Amino acid sequence: MALADDCVFCRILKGEIPSCRVYEDDLVLAFLDIAPFNPGHMVIVPKDHHHSCTTLPEETAGRMMAVAAKLGAAVMRATGAEGFNLFLNNGAVAGQAVPHTHLHVLPRFVSDKVLIEAPVQKYESPEAMQEMAAKIKAGIRN
Amino acid sequence: MALADDCVFCRILKGEIPSCRVYEDDLVLAFLDIAPFNPGHMVIVPKDHHHSCTTLPEETAGRMMAVAAKLGAAVMRATGAEGFNLFLNNGAVAGQAVPHTHLHVLPRFVSDKVLIEAPVQKYESPEAMQEMAAKIKAGIRN
Repeated sequence: MALADDCVFCRILKGEIPSCRVYEDDLVLAFLDIAPFNPGHMVIVPKDHHHSCTTLPEETAGRMMAVAAKLGAAVMRATGAEGFNLFLNNGAVAGQAVPHTHLHVLPRFVSDKVLIEAPVQKYESPEAMQEMAAKIKAGIRN
Repeated sequence: MALADDCVFCRILKGEIPSCRVYEDDLVLAFLDIAPFNPGHMVIVPKDHHHSCTTLPEETAGRMMAVAAKLGAAVMRATGAEGFNLFLNNGAVAGQAVPHTHLHVLPRFVSDKVLIEAPVQKYESPEAMQEMAAKIKAGIRN
């Protein structure tokens, strides 16, 4: 494991800071978020220190999602939640608070106070939309 | 491919409804969201019809995330976004609008109007938190 000394999630991985662990395998650890949006809110972290999900090995990124789907189902059973959100905030502008990439598993209830919203925007024209798709395609790296 | 006749994403997969495709492989397709929160907002869908991410094969769930990380980096290059959110809304209560599971890739800008927030909650005690972790663990199925 490549861990960072000053990263709170690395310290949790090393056992220096306690956490309520829910799941662990060779690549990822999941534990309860200490500042939950709803009871049962978890985060899944890779066992190596990566600030951004964009530098994760594909196998690790993939494991995070496969585990997230399982934990989403598990937290529905455990809490009676009717659904869940998975979300990953990449970069401070996106709300990333801890500089060790993490995937949130958030159980949802009809009466909860979680907001995930924005005013819907429009492309100027179908051509502008095609142009955006082409620009993104050109930006893909392997 | 197991597709559904009345599902808008299955119809996009079949080519019956046009879309601005950004990425495609054997397991997933990514295209621009037609109701974007920001320009460059994409969704990644599995090529088989699954209402919930919880019924996806692990390989497909994993591929969605690995592709999402690549497309997040690509949309930053394409738009100058400073970060991105990945999110998957599972169930109507979580904001799932199309009954074919999909992972959003949302580029983020300092001045945008996207809200992902909730009042932070607390567990009654460390024991209540441990109890929640134990309940979720007990709910995990393979």
